[in-house]
Amino acid sequence: MSLPWHPIPGGLTAPAGFLAAGITAGLKASGNPDLSLLLAPAGAVCAGSFTTNRVRAACVDLCAERLAASGGRARAVLTNSGQANACTGDRGLIDSLRATQSTADLLGLAPEEVLICSTGVIGVPIPMDILLAGLDPLVAALSPEGGADAATAILTTDLIDKQIGLEADLGGRRVRLGGMAKGSGMIHPNMATMLGYLSCDAGVPAELWQAMVQRAVDRSFNAITVDGDTSTNDTYLAFTAGEPLNLEHFEELEAGLTAVSQHLARAIARDGEGATCLIEVQVEGAPDDAGARAMARTICGSSLVKCAIHGRDPNWGRIVAAAGRAGVPFDPEAVALWLGEHQLMAAGQPLVFDRPAASRYMAERAAGAYLNPDPLLGDTVAIRLVVGDGPGEGLAWGCDLSDQYVRINADYTT
Amino acid sequence: MSLPWHPIPGGLTAPAGFLAAGITAGLKASGNPDLSLLLAPAGAVCAGSFTTNRVRAACVDLCAERLAASGGRARAVLTNSGQANACTGDRGLIDSLRATQSTADLLGLAPEEVLICSTGVIGVPIPMDILLAGLDPLVAALSPEGGADAATAILTTDLIDKQIGLEADLGGRRVRLGGMAKGSGMIHPNMATMLGYLSCDAGVPAELWQAMVQRAVDRSFNAITVDGDTSTNDTYLAFTAGEPLNLEHFEELEAGLTAVSQHLARAIARDGEGATCLIEVQVEGAPDDAGARAMARTICGSSLVKCAIHGRDPNWGRIVAAAGRAGVPFDPEAVALWLGEHQLMAAGQPLVFDRPAASRYMAERAAGAYLNPDPLLGDTVAIRLVVGDGPGEGLAWGCDLSDQYVRINADYTT
Repeated sequence: MSLPWHPIPGGLTAPAGFLAAGITAGLKASGNPDLSLLLAPAGAVCAGSFTTNRVRAACVDLCAERLAASGGRARAVLTNSGQANACTGDRGLIDSLRATQSTADLLGLAPEEVLICSTGVIGVPIPMDILLAGLDPLVAALSPEGGADAATAILTTDLIDKQIGLEADLGGRRVRLGGMAKGSGMIHPNMATMLGYLSCDAGVPAELWQAMVQRAVDRSFNAITVDGDTSTNDTYLAFTAGEPLNLEHFEELEAGLTAVSQHLARAIARDGEGATCLIEVQVEGAPDDAGARAMARTICGSSLVKCAIHGRDPNWGRIVAAAGRAGVPFDPEAVALWLGEHQLMAAGQPLVFDRPAASRYMAERAAGAYLNPDPLLGDTVAIRLVVGDGPGEGLAWGCDLSDQYVRINADYTT
Repeated sequence: MSLPWHPIPGGLTAPAGFLAAGITAGLKASGNPDLSLLLAPAGAVCAGSFTTNRVRAACVDLCAERLAASGGRARAVLTNSGQANACTGDRGLIDSLRATQSTADLLGLAPEEVLICSTGVIGVPIPMDILLAGLDPLVAALSPEGGADAATAILTTDLIDKQIGLEADLGGRRVRLGGMAKGSGMIHPNMATMLGYLSCDAGVPAELWQAMVQRAVDRSFNAITVDGDTSTNDTYLAFTAGEPLNLEHFEELEAGLTAVSQHLARAIARDGEGATCLIEVQVEGAPDDAGARAMARTICGSSLVKCAIHGRDPNWGRIVAAAGRAGVPFDPEAVALWLGEHQLMAAGQPLVFDRPAASRYMAERAAGAYLNPDPLLGDTVAIRLVVGDGPGEGLAWGCDLSDQYVRINADYTT
């Protein structure tokens, strides 16, 4: 995490003026919380990043259109979990419009100021009577301590909730960032369902904020992969509202924004269905950063690499073979490769290395997951690949592929 | 299979004048056959298609260079299984040169007329003393009935050998085609290790032959995927030698060439590690054929689709979500989808369908695999997706993703 930011509690409601809530409306058969709301202070600007899938849910269209029409002005976002509201035809848009209209009425906002995200099963309409009946208690539950409840109510197959809060002193002024996310399958964002939310209490012009958020997304959500599938509903919404921040601190703010986004993205990858560890791949020496990121992500996405790490097998051959198919030019004879502290290759050829120790490294990292609930500590298998002497470097994150992933996704009921 | 072709026995040695052999030289610890040789008649032309991976084995470079230098003239190809000879540095090329030189000496050919393919573990050098000692008995075993032995000796993790022979009467003249292949993992050719070989006894000018072969590869090997990984060694070599064929029959010849290539490609997909069925995806109504093929292949490659089919779950949502991320424009509201005879979607929305029957369709198809050893019959789960009224159509093949795939690839020893 970049200085001068340090962690604080509170998640999405850590920044000043943000309210949130999460309740059980009854949308999920399980009885788990399924409806959440975030309310940003007056004057908030909002930047959105959305799935590149050609098939996208009505709620995604609605968010993108409203943000484009208002130049990035929005105050609230409603999230229902249980039904994705994708492939639901005309009804999908009608339901999204009704839900935001009713929420706006209760909050005293214009409908255009309210956004909506949906996650869950594709092709099943939202039970609107249940959702609408839930709005009264949801709005009543809004609170400056509501971040944790909201983070729970957006989950679907996730095993753990994903939140973060950061604080910094920027030129004598306290600035706070908050974030929450969900997602554990169909994760290969451009965006991955993956929903992410960020809050911030510094005033930033909408266009600058949008550019900052997009750069952060490229270095975080667009650098993770669980299974290579891109969802119909992927959305990242980042709100900021507060006294204008001095321009000289924008770089520090962006570092914090990137840190929050990377924390959430890594938490999603770590919670990948059936995963036992987070995989972090760093590529250096590529022609440019984009090429390095593409290679890192291809390695993270390789089923053979993921299986090898699940089997605690230091299989350098699969790693370089995956790098080779990323479409980025490099000299295979220049390749050097590390797994943790263990160097596996130099000058394009395998080295003699302590194979049991390299295998033990992976097993210990995976075991760390159960000792440390923070997805950023203790359970990361780190791969470092140097492909030449170019200036490009990039990071990507993924997780191992287990028989459990297959069982989860073969047995999941549509 | 296209008329006028019909199946015949003999595999690679079905066409007149081709000799082949396969023996156990001792390259594999298992004691299984591991060295094979194909000898084409004098005057043969050869077209090659090779992996697009940036990291490729020395033998691939050698094949590509020799075919380019000679304008597609080659007589023989040696194949060793057990060691891929990739990531073996300078030694890799030296060993490939020695192996082809010794083979050429025994056959009375120039070294440039002999090609070599290697498959097996990456990063391990070929035990050259064993390979060279095997060449004498290998050449002695060359026979016009050697196709089956050759097809067995190229296998690695494959469960079954992959061969085909076809015959047609083209204007009163009998023409024969033969083929063999190996591959079951690291299969997403561009080319996937996937090795394929084709023989033909019709005389065709080298440039025309190369163009025909490339079109056939695009419709076969480049339309399959097992796990999305592209190997360092993928190679398809197609030899033809015989009396010149009349130009008017070239279209029929290409249909046969495509049928052989598709048979071998489908057999590889069906033998995908841990697979219980072949998946065939047909996309229609796309802007063009290339777009349709890209969508079909993306669906075949989706881990979520593959898991759903393994679970016999008619999960149409995952199929359209995969289609949506292929990068090809289409109107989601125009989508119609069939699984076998069961229509699952119309006008972009799910239909009410007989879910147990659709699930039973997949289970029965998968069960067919064990009843019928021919990978082309009885065990294909067919998906048909119509995405509009464009002229583009395309096919792709893959297989389901099982917990067995993960176990095979997590436990495989490097």
